Amino acid sequence: MKQQRISFAKGHGTENDFVILDDAQAELDITPDLVRRLCDRRAGIGADGLLRVATTGALRNAGVLERVEDIADDVMFMDYYNADGSTAEMCGNGTRVFAHWVRLNGYETSEQFVVGTRAGAKPVVVHSFDELQADVSVAMGNAEVTGVSTCKMGSQRFAGLGVDMGNPHLACVVPGLDREALSQLELQAPEIDKEFFPHGVNLEILTPLENGATHMRVFERGVGETRSCGTGTVAAARSALADAGLLDGTVKVHVPGGTVSVVIKGEESTLRGPSRVIARGEVQVEALGR
Amino acid sequence: MKQQRISFAKGHGTENDFVILDDAQAELDITPDLVRRLCDRRAGIGADGLLRVATTGALRNAGVLERVEDIADDVMFMDYYNADGSTAEMCGNGTRVFAHWVRLNGYETSEQFVVGTRAGAKPVVVHSFDELQADVSVAMGNAEVTGVSTCKMGSQRFAGLGVDMGNPHLACVVPGLDREALSQLELQAPEIDKEFFPHGVNLEILTPLENGATHMRVFERGVGETRSCGTGTVAAARSALADAGLLDGTVKVHVPGGTVSVVIKGEESTLRGPSRVIARGEVQVEALGR
Repeated sequence: MKQQRISFAKGHGTENDFVILDDAQAELDITPDLVRRLCDRRAGIGADGLLRVATTGALRNAGVLERVEDIADDVMFMDYYNADGSTAEMCGNGTRVFAHWVRLNGYETSEQFVVGTRAGAKPVVVHSFDELQADVSVAMGNAEVTGVSTCKMGSQRFAGLGVDMGNPHLACVVPGLDREALSQLELQAPEIDKEFFPHGVNLEILTPLENGATHMRVFERGVGETRSCGTGTVAAARSALADAGLLDGTVKVHVPGGTVSVVIKGEESTLRGPSRVIARGEVQVEALGR
Repeated sequence: MKQQRISFAKGHGTENDFVILDDAQAELDITPDLVRRLCDRRAGIGADGLLRVATTGALRNAGVLERVEDIADDVMFMDYYNADGSTAEMCGNGTRVFAHWVRLNGYETSEQFVVGTRAGAKPVVVHSFDELQADVSVAMGNAEVTGVSTCKMGSQRFAGLGVDMGNPHLACVVPGLDREALSQLELQAPEIDKEFFPHGVNLEILTPLENGATHMRVFERGVGETRSCGTGTVAAARSALADAGLLDGTVKVHVPGGTVSVVIKGEESTLRGPSRVIARGEVQVEALGR
């Protein structure tokens, strides 16, 4: 299939950024190589990941989806790819941008709907939106505490809660840490308890809950420090609440890329935050690369 | 002036990438803040720099240019900005992309023409071009050897030629270094001779000339390692030739972002290499940022 030009948009949620391909009928042939070339920050558009917007039925017919039998054909599906070309089950920040896009372009016409993902159908609420930005909540499921663990980073040792969000997190509240001291920490790959986290872990370092807010930085496994991590903000909220002796609550989580709000209520969690669509255009696929 | 939407393109030369704003009549109000927001790699389009395409006369009338009296009003001027919003006098890789753009869009209709820059009018040759790519030579002036100097990087010491390209370079040929060993070097900010380079220096580490080619990596002052540096490749060619006992010659310079060809002949040097235009679109200026 010839793909000389592809329409694209670029958006971000708290500076977790995405190339958006609007492809309702799943006509594009999205290969790992194409994803890598589009997400390349110098020889491509540049992004943390790629979101294809398509109906679940079209993706099913195109043979892209397997094992998502519980999602109806007419649900819009977030066909998500990491910048390295691999698929990902779910991306909290990406889901906001996806929901913004499908609402903005009329694929969904009510405030509440579900977004198909490889991790199942995720309820979302688009509280407000225009061409430029949106305010979106995404149901993030159970932020399950798996225990207490520690890690070492350089000469410093951190203790925190293991939180399973579908992916593993270690969310460490540091007593006495404030925003300024957090910003000056030298983050590096942590030494972790490999029995507790056999598949590695995403590490959050955060300040104690104060006036319902925490400041956090995140070191993602296999990636390094990032500007934001959706599941990480929920894990951090869980840990900040627990550190304050609370099971449930609402936490404003400040990350380097912006601010989100997390609600934890029993086995349900919700991530609410901004989406931005900053540009639209056409990419010349054959020109991607050197 | 309202700038809700601006047409843009993105291009690169050996992975030195640019946002291109086609603004022949210099109607856009390009502020440092706008440049920073457009070049932001997560909350913007993302690029190493911004190229405004305008006539010299229009920029003069708009009060953007001073002290370039020797460039005619009808010459297309590369109004170049670094990602941090500052202006730069010249950018070798950017000039190729600029020349590609003005030829592609009919501002110039012959193979050879001059490009206006803050460092004066630069003769260019667009050897071939289409919508996607071009092969462009840019006259880079005198690669003037200023002496021999050394630097220290971690536990390693390097010796090389100081080369003045308008900006200062230290181009170090490392005896016995091959492509593989070069790729594994841990580059970091060098300790330099501050009397020799009072304004800092761009450091090139390169392999000895072999079959007319050298492999190089570059550590730019104030930036860190980059995929390519136009003036750096010319300085490297000068140093590789000198190391081989040659004053003049043609050198193929391999950088992490691709390959260019440098010709040095007395006090003239020419940089020849690729340009790519990968995308065009519209950016929603008000959405830039968080």
